[in-house]
Amino acid sequence: MKQYQAAIIGYGNIGRYLLEAIAAAPDFQLAGVVRRPQTVKERPLELKEVPVVTALSELNQVDVAFLALPTRLVPQSAPEVLAMGINTVDSYDLHGELAKYRRDLDQVAKAHGRTAVISAGWDPGTDSILRCLFQMMTPRGITYTNFGPGMSMGHTVAVKAIPGVKDALSLTIPLGTGLHRRMVYVELEAGADPQMVTTAIKEDPYFRHDETIVQFVPDVQELIDPGHGVLLERKGSSGLTPNQLLRFEMRINNPALTAQVMVAAARAGFKQPPGCYTMIELPPIDYLYGERERIIEKIV
Amino acid sequence: MKQYQAAIIGYGNIGRYLLEAIAAAPDFQLAGVVRRPQTVKERPLELKEVPVVTALSELNQVDVAFLALPTRLVPQSAPEVLAMGINTVDSYDLHGELAKYRRDLDQVAKAHGRTAVISAGWDPGTDSILRCLFQMMTPRGITYTNFGPGMSMGHTVAVKAIPGVKDALSLTIPLGTGLHRRMVYVELEAGADPQMVTTAIKEDPYFRHDETIVQFVPDVQELIDPGHGVLLERKGSSGLTPNQLLRFEMRINNPALTAQVMVAAARAGFKQPPGCYTMIELPPIDYLYGERERIIEKIV
Repeated sequence: MKQYQAAIIGYGNIGRYLLEAIAAAPDFQLAGVVRRPQTVKERPLELKEVPVVTALSELNQVDVAFLALPTRLVPQSAPEVLAMGINTVDSYDLHGELAKYRRDLDQVAKAHGRTAVISAGWDPGTDSILRCLFQMMTPRGITYTNFGPGMSMGHTVAVKAIPGVKDALSLTIPLGTGLHRRMVYVELEAGADPQMVTTAIKEDPYFRHDETIVQFVPDVQELIDPGHGVLLERKGSSGLTPNQLLRFEMRINNPALTAQVMVAAARAGFKQPPGCYTMIELPPIDYLYGERERIIEKIV
Repeated sequence: MKQYQAAIIGYGNIGRYLLEAIAAAPDFQLAGVVRRPQTVKERPLELKEVPVVTALSELNQVDVAFLALPTRLVPQSAPEVLAMGINTVDSYDLHGELAKYRRDLDQVAKAHGRTAVISAGWDPGTDSILRCLFQMMTPRGITYTNFGPGMSMGHTVAVKAIPGVKDALSLTIPLGTGLHRRMVYVELEAGADPQMVTTAIKEDPYFRHDETIVQFVPDVQELIDPGHGVLLERKGSSGLTPNQLLRFEMRINNPALTAQVMVAAARAGFKQPPGCYTMIELPPIDYLYGERERIIEKIV
């Protein structure tokens, strides 16, 4: 019953967990992994038996490609993959730009008769579905998305780019009502000025608007764990009735959940007409493995 | 922009709150309320300006009918309404029978080119969507649905049917891991035997499998409030990663939420091809009022 042949493009954090999520899915089979020429010769143990190539075209029969690339590279890669007649799934996470990305990719997907599911992860992704549900249940009110505690990839990368920083970790700490504290742990280069680094971090656009605490540590790596979480809260009105209280909370391994959601999104992608979809546009049942009637009996 | 003309069939608890949810929705307008001949002459204040009739056919142009009837009457009413070329939405809540009801109604809906959204409420309904999401995020694991504290309509009706019971209230108290205590408050008829009533309740199929505590009170009505709640919990694995913790909790006015969800389901029904749908089969975005692109920009 392994009916879908899947390729992983990119082999960072998400790529590694995609390998596991694909292995655990009854309906997906790994066709291979696409890596950059510089890294294609590296063979970690888990890739020993896996075709590893530098171009998707080197793999036989691929039905869907998971774009496990840095987010900014995704909008360039997706149209190329779709043009090869292969569905795509990505976890593009720039909230402000995904609506435009979707419009552009929708035309490409339709032109090639394939589907693309974009921004499939937990935020954007499953959190988006929850925000949709919360709004539908209580059309008037405010939803607060509180992230963490957990590591923010974007913020961490921003700190690492600052001169004098050898290694860094930016943790997101929820303060409630959608506000966050940034706890930044920095390992300095020899001779770097802590005060200058602190100022550079606090003035960075990623940090400027949030409470930011910078601490210097001898070893950043020992602080890193992939645990993350979110708390979605809403107090709203159903019809004319106020004070309806909704709350979703999760504590998760971040890349493991993202990879799992991407596999579910790929499954849903195969069930749609050609086009580009965000997760809120797909019927929840389509994400699940199994026979439709049995799912309805068991889950509804 | 009030483009959908809606009828409410039945005017109990849910019907009253549907009146408010329809009034609050920018895209729905109330065409009228259908009541039984015995009650059609009653005119509570909020129905003074509303057409109240004894048959749906007496109303001009109805696009969708909300079946706010006792659950067991719903499967008979829905096909009749669809045959009139009118969409239906119900909150049919017999979990064990809804899959069959859906299959039967699907043929009727398709034959008349209309849509039916069934079991639209919070359980079945929005809880079903959450169970779907939880399973997609962590395909292996156990989801516990913990209801309450809140009034159970089904259990309350069962107690009221026992000889010697003048009035009753059955509260559902969550004990965790999907188990529940039933707290039953009973107002006895003059001369009734408390011990016989207690035994009859505890032996009733609704109560036999749960811890059940019966208490006798002088006035049941002063104990009744429509507050309810649920806690959905899951610990599961994403791919090969265990210990992913998911949790949804809400505290709500029960009929107000049900009515609001039914209005959202009606909106989604207008966007589907003919057929019968449970809520997990509809894209979450379709439940929302507003322009698709704006919703994606704002919510995803």
